[in-house]
Amino acid sequence: MSEQPTLALLAEKLGAELRLAAGASDSLVPSGLNTLQDATQQEVSFLASAAYKRFLSSTRACAVLVTAEQAASCPVSALVVADPYQAFARATSIYDRSPQYAAGIDPSASVAPSAEVHHSAYVGPGAVIEARAQIAENAVIGAGSIVGAGSVIGARSRLFPGVVVYHGCFIGADCIVHSNTVIGADGFGFAPSQGKWTKIHQLGGVEIADEVEVGANSCIDRGALGNTVIGRGVKIDNMVQIAHNVQIGDYSAMAACSAVAGSAVIGKHCTIAGGVGIVGHVTIADRSHVTARTLVTKSIEEPGSYSSGTPFSESRTWRRNAVRFGQLDQMSKRLGNVEKSLAQIEQEAAPRKQEADGPPQGDPR
Amino acid sequence: MSEQPTLALLAEKLGAELRLAAGASDSLVPSGLNTLQDATQQEVSFLASAAYKRFLSSTRACAVLVTAEQAASCPVSALVVADPYQAFARATSIYDRSPQYAAGIDPSASVAPSAEVHHSAYVGPGAVIEARAQIAENAVIGAGSIVGAGSVIGARSRLFPGVVVYHGCFIGADCIVHSNTVIGADGFGFAPSQGKWTKIHQLGGVEIADEVEVGANSCIDRGALGNTVIGRGVKIDNMVQIAHNVQIGDYSAMAACSAVAGSAVIGKHCTIAGGVGIVGHVTIADRSHVTARTLVTKSIEEPGSYSSGTPFSESRTWRRNAVRFGQLDQMSKRLGNVEKSLAQIEQEAAPRKQEADGPPQGDPR
Amino acid sequence: MSEQPTLALLAEKLGAELRLAAGASDSLVPSGLNTLQDATQQEVSFLASAAYKRFLSSTRACAVLVTAEQAASCPVSALVVADPYQAFARATSIYDRSPQYAAGIDPSASVAPSAEVHHSAYVGPGAVIEARAQIAENAVIGAGSIVGAGSVIGARSRLFPGVVVYHGCFIGADCIVHSNTVIGADGFGFAPSQGKWTKIHQLGGVEIADEVEVGANSCIDRGALGNTVIGRGVKIDNMVQIAHNVQIGDYSAMAACSAVAGSAVIGKHCTIAGGVGIVGHVTIADRSHVTARTLVTKSIEEPGSYSSGTPFSESRTWRRNAVRFGQLDQMSKRLGNVEKSLAQIEQEAAPRKQEADGPPQGDPR
Repeated sequence: MSEQPTLALLAEKLGAELRLAAGASDSLVPSGLNTLQDATQQEVSFLASAAYKRFLSSTRACAVLVTAEQAASCPVSALVVADPYQAFARATSIYDRSPQYAAGIDPSASVAPSAEVHHSAYVGPGAVIEARAQIAENAVIGAGSIVGAGSVIGARSRLFPGVVVYHGCFIGADCIVHSNTVIGADGFGFAPSQGKWTKIHQLGGVEIADEVEVGANSCIDRGALGNTVIGRGVKIDNMVQIAHNVQIGDYSAMAACSAVAGSAVIGKHCTIAGGVGIVGHVTIADRSHVTARTLVTKSIEEPGSYSSGTPFSESRTWRRNAVRFGQLDQMSKRLGNVEKSLAQIEQEAAPRKQEADGPPQGDPR
Repeated sequence: MSEQPTLALLAEKLGAELRLAAGASDSLVPSGLNTLQDATQQEVSFLASAAYKRFLSSTRACAVLVTAEQAASCPVSALVVADPYQAFARATSIYDRSPQYAAGIDPSASVAPSAEVHHSAYVGPGAVIEARAQIAENAVIGAGSIVGAGSVIGARSRLFPGVVVYHGCFIGADCIVHSNTVIGADGFGFAPSQGKWTKIHQLGGVEIADEVEVGANSCIDRGALGNTVIGRGVKIDNMVQIAHNVQIGDYSAMAACSAVAGSAVIGKHCTIAGGVGIVGHVTIADRSHVTARTLVTKSIEEPGSYSSGTPFSESRTWRRNAVRFGQLDQMSKRLGNVEKSLAQIEQEAAPRKQEADGPPQGDPR
Repeated sequence: MSEQPTLALLAEKLGAELRLAAGASDSLVPSGLNTLQDATQQEVSFLASAAYKRFLSSTRACAVLVTAEQAASCPVSALVVADPYQAFARATSIYDRSPQYAAGIDPSASVAPSAEVHHSAYVGPGAVIEARAQIAENAVIGAGSIVGAGSVIGARSRLFPGVVVYHGCFIGADCIVHSNTVIGADGFGFAPSQGKWTKIHQLGGVEIADEVEVGANSCIDRGALGNTVIGRGVKIDNMVQIAHNVQIGDYSAMAACSAVAGSAVIGKHCTIAGGVGIVGHVTIADRSHVTARTLVTKSIEEPGSYSSGTPFSESRTWRRNAVRFGQLDQMSKRLGNVEKSLAQIEQEAAPRKQEADGPPQGDPR
């Protein structure tokens, strides 16, 4: 993080047109970013969604990222951009305070003689770089992280403290892996044998493309044969489980606590909400969306939105309905029987009804 | 842990009235605590729930924590208290054998010169205390734990080994955080931009009040703007995911594998069972209870118990019913049609029935 | 890992009969294992399931593990065995490249004077062995792993980097524990007291038998009183939560993200699929199978397969059906009313029908 910019410089960095409010100065140095409701007079805000428009008129922010259209109703200085949410995202990198680390290897780190650590990389206290591992330029290996034998960490990639990368894994450039995530542990493979389990040693690795982010306490297992593959620009949240030989297409995103079983193939640009489960060996079409907690048990052939589960309600009500779930097949059959009886009654009633009504009238039309 | 107390001293510590059985001595030193069924003659037991009352008569325990009412049926010495379960909980602290650590910084720990570690605190082997972090009196930082730049660990709080606290987080006094939990990792925030994702740097922090316990392998993400906030006395189990800007009210408890999405607000004194999911931006009323595995998709306005899901059963039966779930809307419409047909038949039948039955009788009332 | 074997030696190691294809040599040294589709001419493959039989005729593998029956249709050299999948599993151990560690204690490790580390064991960089802990022969304690006071790691067992074993836990021989898993953290026990929670210190431990494998980022909590017990040969995947005092019977397997609540007892040879939840205090019969994401809310008395949940579908369709779930009890009652009305109509119709049809015919039989 460099010096904080003036409003004028911020506008320049974001490619925004600065429309100063009366009496405002473009040499003000904003202290940071905040929501429309909470921003102080030193903070910049943004209007990213129609839902928040009602907070615009009363904001105290020194400036607001808005579209040209919204600028008219902005009571303070406007930073006019085509896409305020996108501009806000870029602005966050300007105000980010996360610690940066100078190049070098902490004396308490263990680096194998055959490992290659670029002189611009940082290796934190207690980190371990095993034999033949490669740490590229400007990479950051956080305190206590482990990079296993022969594994590669790409340029500018950052492992936060406590990440474990097993042997024979590849992480591309510009990746972020949050703390205590484990990459390359064994997939869950055992052959049953007379009531016991024989371990199938997992001979593949993990291959993570550039610009991938993985949250904290997640797992990406190594392949049984061949690699588990995470595509370019994929974003994975905390506590996500990716089993052996899964493939995730470029720019897909998976929210927290979702899990993908072995050999499943997820397309590109998919959005997988929190807590979703995807069973093994299925294929998910590009641009599919899966809603929270859905269990995907078959391949998804067409892009679209997919769901499972039941609505939540007060427990007493829920319990009454849940009991009926266990009677559904029976209910369906009863309904079928009712329909049959009814059809028969109507059929039998028809001649009687006819008698009662007299002979059918010819349709005059 | 001090010397183990005699029965007399134990009673005193727990504020219990000791009613010695015939021939028993209050100078006995119990070896520990156990259930009514498993306690030896050297162990103290407790009767915490009516469900276990049947085990009282045959217990071999040297003494049992009971209410005055239960004391009469206690075959051994009774430790009479108002709330035996509460007294048992307090007794566990007397018999706890978890290792204690003397004040001091392990020579293998890395402490930044600008960090402040109270002389009574303990910093274990390989732990890292970054710049400007503060470790208060009698705090315990377990082996390999990381306290990020500027973060604060309150008095008597304990991080078990392997905990990672990112920069700019605040943990109050008397907290416990179990191993490999991650506090302050980035929330999952990305702005879509032409099929790619732009990272929204997470500028907020995490604020944890006093007397909070967090289990192992859990995650509490830092806020995007502003803090993620965990209230006083909150208890969080293992593998719980708390997303950015969540707020959890005082004394709420969340069991293992539950997850709360971004900006959700959970009230005070809530009890969230295991595996519960709570979607983003909802509000949960104080004193709400949510049963295991429920997905909460809307705000809960009134305290009460809430549930979702279906009952489990033998897979074949379940499959038949689950198929019908996919036909439910159709079934509902069919049922509506049946009702309509039936109403029409009844209406038509009415005059015929009348004919058959003769003229309607006048109601004498 | 020793030298890679020739085809002849591989056959010998696997107890396979080598049937060389025309022109093939048993002195070829295969480079590894692969699937029928992907194997090169240097790789050995296997036919483990009928589903893959169609790939046999076109495989380029140098040899294929097959049954005697399948050998006839094998276009390349055949390694004839009774159980090809089992033989494949054993073959993976021959080609495993995971790093091995020479005996010895890394100088950056912290080993308490009272701990006992066998001279053949390995203790990695930054690992911590606390007071009175025991590390048996040929055990491997990965970098940064912690073995708490008095805990025992059995012969040939391996903790991958970052594992935390709390005090007073016992891990048997030939076990594998993957990175960042936590064994022996406190169970989630609190006694409510006037709106607050009193901690119930967890006085028990964890007892893991021989040949157990536990995945990455999993948790096995210590018992409240008495131990949490994992039986012989149990296989546990990543991110599995085992609460206090759970018992898991020998040779059971639990896939990723499953969770077992306190004091549940799981039988032997059970297979628990991914994402399953098992509530507290239930018992699961030996040889039970539970399908993915099922929530087990009651004891399972008979072996069999058990399930819960709803099928997934396109969200719009799902939503229509899910709404009806909330009306199920009402639907069931409406169906009951319809049946009653119908019965009445049929009863009333009977005499009329009789009239219309003429007197009933005597049954000639």
